[in-house]
Amino acid sequence: MLIVQKFGGTSVGDLDRIESVAKRVAKSKDMGNDIVVVVSAMSGETNKLISYANHFSKSPNKREMDMLLSSGERVTSSLLSIALNEMGYEAIALTGRQAGMITDNVHTGARIEKIDTSRMKKALGENKIIIVAGFQGIDRDGNVTTLGRGGSDLSAVAIAGALNADLCEIYTDVDGVYTTDPRIEPKAKKIEKISYDEMLEFASMGAKVLQNRSVELAKKLNVNLVTRSSFNENEGTLITKEENIMEKPVVSGVALDKNQARITLRGVVDKPGIAADIFKKLADGNINVDMIIQNVGEDGSTNLGFTVPQNELEDAKKIMLELNASKNLEFDSNVAKVSIVGVGMKSHSGVASQAFETLANENINIEMISTSEIKISMIVDRKYSELAVRALHEAYELDR
Amino acid sequence: MLIVQKFGGTSVGDLDRIESVAKRVAKSKDMGNDIVVVVSAMSGETNKLISYANHFSKSPNKREMDMLLSSGERVTSSLLSIALNEMGYEAIALTGRQAGMITDNVHTGARIEKIDTSRMKKALGENKIIIVAGFQGIDRDGNVTTLGRGGSDLSAVAIAGALNADLCEIYTDVDGVYTTDPRIEPKAKKIEKISYDEMLEFASMGAKVLQNRSVELAKKLNVNLVTRSSFNENEGTLITKEENIMEKPVVSGVALDKNQARITLRGVVDKPGIAADIFKKLADGNINVDMIIQNVGEDGSTNLGFTVPQNELEDAKKIMLELNASKNLEFDSNVAKVSIVGVGMKSHSGVASQAFETLANENINIEMISTSEIKISMIVDRKYSELAVRALHEAYELDR
Repeated sequence: MLIVQKFGGTSVGDLDRIESVAKRVAKSKDMGNDIVVVVSAMSGETNKLISYANHFSKSPNKREMDMLLSSGERVTSSLLSIALNEMGYEAIALTGRQAGMITDNVHTGARIEKIDTSRMKKALGENKIIIVAGFQGIDRDGNVTTLGRGGSDLSAVAIAGALNADLCEIYTDVDGVYTTDPRIEPKAKKIEKISYDEMLEFASMGAKVLQNRSVELAKKLNVNLVTRSSFNENEGTLITKEENIMEKPVVSGVALDKNQARITLRGVVDKPGIAADIFKKLADGNINVDMIIQNVGEDGSTNLGFTVPQNELEDAKKIMLELNASKNLEFDSNVAKVSIVGVGMKSHSGVASQAFETLANENINIEMISTSEIKISMIVDRKYSELAVRALHEAYELDR
Repeated sequence: MLIVQKFGGTSVGDLDRIESVAKRVAKSKDMGNDIVVVVSAMSGETNKLISYANHFSKSPNKREMDMLLSSGERVTSSLLSIALNEMGYEAIALTGRQAGMITDNVHTGARIEKIDTSRMKKALGENKIIIVAGFQGIDRDGNVTTLGRGGSDLSAVAIAGALNADLCEIYTDVDGVYTTDPRIEPKAKKIEKISYDEMLEFASMGAKVLQNRSVELAKKLNVNLVTRSSFNENEGTLITKEENIMEKPVVSGVALDKNQARITLRGVVDKPGIAADIFKKLADGNINVDMIIQNVGEDGSTNLGFTVPQNELEDAKKIMLELNASKNLEFDSNVAKVSIVGVGMKSHSGVASQAFETLANENINIEMISTSEIKISMIVDRKYSELAVRALHEAYELDR
């Protein structure tokens, strides 16, 4: 098998951990696999470099920033290669440029345009272990670029796609994706397989395992993604095409997002363009609106409800008060969003009503509801949100 | 003027010093000059990276080592560029590759093969300040290489040569080249101008200001080299062609090398090949033989004397004892080499006799003498060596 293995900052956080990573990579190689490793900077290094840059400038020149930030991954990749060579393996560290990672020229947030795999293919042909410095590439003029937050994951997925790898393993400090947060529900179970779309729903609800950009790219490139821990040997969670998942559970997991605040605008005149105007102003103010619900009201007017991240509520308030008289506005910063996610919902009816019933049985009022093909999200009073998660987790038998 | 300015590790040792360097560069730019800056890694960084590598291997893979070590200069160059951009200057940091530095593929000790100046010339044409990461280049396959100790100086000199710069300023923590070590003779004076050949003699006698490789390259490329301090505004020392120095002093300076030990072999049969055999064996044993003197002895035999660095004496002893009976061998680890250097010697007679007379007046016995066109070296008892330096410094009126 050809496996791309990506190790994040905490997995290569110090020299002993890099040594552990070397042993793990060697073991995969010994099993007869071809291995391409993608590494992040040692944890803390990137922040250190950013603080250095901020000593000189609050908004450092972005091109220069990319050259600065790209150095951390070079250190990790060469150290890992040195360790593997010492262990008797032929390993070669490649910078983003050497790995053929061509991006656009949007410094500090570049997009991968193509990967020239010739050098990697040559090294694989020579049976070498390749260690790629993640997070970085070059633009068409040879300037160093970086891919933004989560960039090393993107590097790994893009390389796995370009090399048509059998597997892309993302190593972090967690075991995989769980049916819900084990700190809320100790009976939470690790999910063995999950579809890209479900993972995207989980990721957008704050599951920190993977960022949406990486999952989206994996879906686009049809890369089998595994998220697992670098600190133990447990199997992780495979994120793959829906067709690859034989038994599709109706509900795969329950997610909780406490970073929510609700804004309600009553008595909006029900004519075209009003909502568009409100949400354009909010977008201009960099407010990330999440759920939006519009109810039919009385007398040709409607009620408009939406949620924003809690830390953006004050800014959102200002914008809304400029637009409207305060008497029609309601703000609630004590809400949370509880969601159930599952591809099985598509073919099963009654999933939503079971959720509502479950919460009703616990006397939890549902303030807002939003559904997609594979997700049902409910806004509830924040103090009941953990209870809601546990009740739903049990109702859908996720601990079985 | 087009000026190449090179700042070493202590000059960019912390963020405040980088800020000072930025101001100094800006000042040179404000005076209407075109500026190319070459920087080393922040002091301590390269050693830190080496210790990281040694955690994994006593002799780390050299190709990987180069990728590791090259990261330090990238950090400094991008930080300096960020600082200059913040100050309102258009600056651009270039890696060795981006600066067009092509080397052979001898990792950790590469030689510069050529410099493709197109990108630097383009940036200079756009009136930009260029900041080059020193010490590094790429081989013809795109692998990162480093130039070995003093590599950033070499980068600067080579770039100055390739761009036909008017001046190459090497900034360190010392003011320039002195007539002798001021810790030995407080009356020592800074030399205003010195020829390449004199500087080479000083450098090979342990003057730490510049390494021979850089001076040799400057001589070859006809680069006007200035060594000066980054911590004050004092004029430094210009190292240039002999023709550029109008008033050639007979003696430019006095150097002291205490790291010397003397070996004497008495009664060597005076036939061809004997000396060759001895020095080949010493060379095979990695002994750096410095001065060699052969005296005519009695009965067709000769006495052979030579010096080695003190810390290589034990190894040299072993080799010599394998070759010869101990009765003919003498070892003396309490010697030092005092040298006077000056291009004026070529055209002045009596320089040597004045030196011998000076030491005789102080009752200092000269154990060995070696001369070149522009240098006279004398081996003396180490305990008199500082006295010898002061006496010679005065005799040639170097404090005037």
